[in-house]
Amino acid sequence: MRGCATDGVVAWHRTLRKAFHSFCSPTSCIFGPNLPDVWVPREHTPPHTLFPESLQWANNGHNALILEGKPIAKQIKLEVADEIRRMKSGIGKFPRLAVVLVGDRRDSHTFIHIKLKACDQVGIETVTSQLPENCDESELLDVVSGFNEDPDVHGILVQLPLPQHLDEEKIINVVSPEKDVDGFHPLNIGNLAIRGRKPFFVPCAPKGCIELLLRHGVEIKGKRAVIIGRSKIVGLPTSLLLQRHHATVSVLHAYTKNPEHITSEADIVVVDVGVPNIVRGNWLKKGAVVIDMGTNQVKDPSGHGFCVSGDVCFEEAVKVASAITPVPGGVGPVTISMLLSNTLDSAKRAFGMV
Amino acid sequence: MRGCATDGVVAWHRTLRKAFHSFCSPTSCIFGPNLPDVWVPREHTPPHTLFPESLQWANNGHNALILEGKPIAKQIKLEVADEIRRMKSGIGKFPRLAVVLVGDRRDSHTFIHIKLKACDQVGIETVTSQLPENCDESELLDVVSGFNEDPDVHGILVQLPLPQHLDEEKIINVVSPEKDVDGFHPLNIGNLAIRGRKPFFVPCAPKGCIELLLRHGVEIKGKRAVIIGRSKIVGLPTSLLLQRHHATVSVLHAYTKNPEHITSEADIVVVDVGVPNIVRGNWLKKGAVVIDMGTNQVKDPSGHGFCVSGDVCFEEAVKVASAITPVPGGVGPVTISMLLSNTLDSAKRAFGMV
Repeated sequence: MRGCATDGVVAWHRTLRKAFHSFCSPTSCIFGPNLPDVWVPREHTPPHTLFPESLQWANNGHNALILEGKPIAKQIKLEVADEIRRMKSGIGKFPRLAVVLVGDRRDSHTFIHIKLKACDQVGIETVTSQLPENCDESELLDVVSGFNEDPDVHGILVQLPLPQHLDEEKIINVVSPEKDVDGFHPLNIGNLAIRGRKPFFVPCAPKGCIELLLRHGVEIKGKRAVIIGRSKIVGLPTSLLLQRHHATVSVLHAYTKNPEHITSEADIVVVDVGVPNIVRGNWLKKGAVVIDMGTNQVKDPSGHGFCVSGDVCFEEAVKVASAITPVPGGVGPVTISMLLSNTLDSAKRAFGMV
Repeated sequence: MRGCATDGVVAWHRTLRKAFHSFCSPTSCIFGPNLPDVWVPREHTPPHTLFPESLQWANNGHNALILEGKPIAKQIKLEVADEIRRMKSGIGKFPRLAVVLVGDRRDSHTFIHIKLKACDQVGIETVTSQLPENCDESELLDVVSGFNEDPDVHGILVQLPLPQHLDEEKIINVVSPEKDVDGFHPLNIGNLAIRGRKPFFVPCAPKGCIELLLRHGVEIKGKRAVIIGRSKIVGLPTSLLLQRHHATVSVLHAYTKNPEHITSEADIVVVDVGVPNIVRGNWLKKGAVVIDMGTNQVKDPSGHGFCVSGDVCFEEAVKVASAITPVPGGVGPVTISMLLSNTLDSAKRAFGMV
């Protein structure tokens, strides 16, 4: 985002947004344009020096643009609700999501509550199956299989993590890939990884990350993207999706020797590590776009109870980055709306509408 | 590989090899050790300057170690042949590979000939189905389905590329993932991508790349690895596999703005782009390990006919790298031996031997 006086940034965003929407059809947007790799033999060129572009990207003393997730989530929910209303009045059908919850984890119950409420707001019917902490694996498999075979269920969400005695891999494998609204099934991950293919679903948090970037007009093609963290739920699929958008992707993890240096070269930084404030302001190139996907429970500085903090030291990063997500209120709300959009897509496929 | 006088390099390789084999069991080696990511909050550290380690990695004027593939391929073939002999005498069974060839491409016929000959050398039975260039898609699907259902076929190889009128994605999807010895099925790619999971098969060229590195004692964990090229056959799965070995992976492609700079930071460089000599000596950090997976037909400099050339300018790279694969004779022979090992593994699974 060059020319970074605030008006210039906003104007640049509008230009990018127009350019982007004329570039690819809405249905291909989430995977990026399917461009061939045409390599051109290169002349002898010396190595780049660090930060040639960032000098132009300097945020000129302005704080970063805050990439608010709530307005985007709200917009997406309106779009989904509208489509479901038309589906109901048109063909008398609607999407149904099955939710499977095992055990008593407080955070899991909270997340499920948020998801069910969001479904209710947009017109997605839900059916919940709750199993005790010590349930047999066969019970859980039966529940999932039942939802697989139910033609009136379009999405199946098994809330993770599962109790330790259950084989999470086996459970995820059993969910039908065509109802795997979380996008965790290896068939969906494989089809996400392979350029030119389309999975039935993209995992919600990575999909939300891309929506945040695209809807704020952030250019991805040709940019250096660094993903810090490689979880199967966030880091891995986000890296695959950014690569589909033709970013040059580097994935950092706990065995990376110099994450600060590599991160300092990134135009786009996505963090999901689970350590509060691990990414400091001096890790970042001036003008970088920062997507903080961390959700850490930390003691509230006021001394009363707990609050949610990201993996990025916001106070430092906001002075360096050109744009940054807040925590909470960044990727989180958009992630939930992606679950709604995934469930709707599944129903549309089931009804032969796509 | 520090301390790079030749004897020192050889001694370092021996040390690494011992350390590696005591680190993980043979069956887990191809996926690397399954290590958890334990992040430690970092103190404020300034960004690294470029090349601090390479000054220690300088190859001191010695040419790079040539990572010959033929001796490794020979060794792997001996191991496979030995295991098949014992299988035949022990349980009276042996692996069988089905090979499907469509059309008249000369290179495809050559590759199939090489693969069938290798199978014959180690005791893998083969059955070949040859279809004309203009065959119907349904004919090809029937052939593949037939092999899927045949309990005496343990591996199915559909030689790519297919004629343009055939839907390659559909054909690959139909091959049973449990017989997909090329490892291209999205289920296998997905299970390769997700840490902690195991695909039925790893694609042969990436698997060969890792075997070359491991058998030469090259340390992967914690190293910067740059993969230039992101094809589904080579670049993509190689990047996933190196990440499983805890390298810090960056994937470059035709939309990468400064591939020379990023490559210059890599300890391990893997190239598969299809452009002869695109990677020059000055792209490389002193002491880098270079795996050239390119196979380009170029005019023989002698003026007679054609020869095979890699994607790396060997004459320049050999003076900078600490180790480099030749083309031909590097990854190619090992790739073929990986097909044999994949087919054997499939038979062992079918016979309940693993």
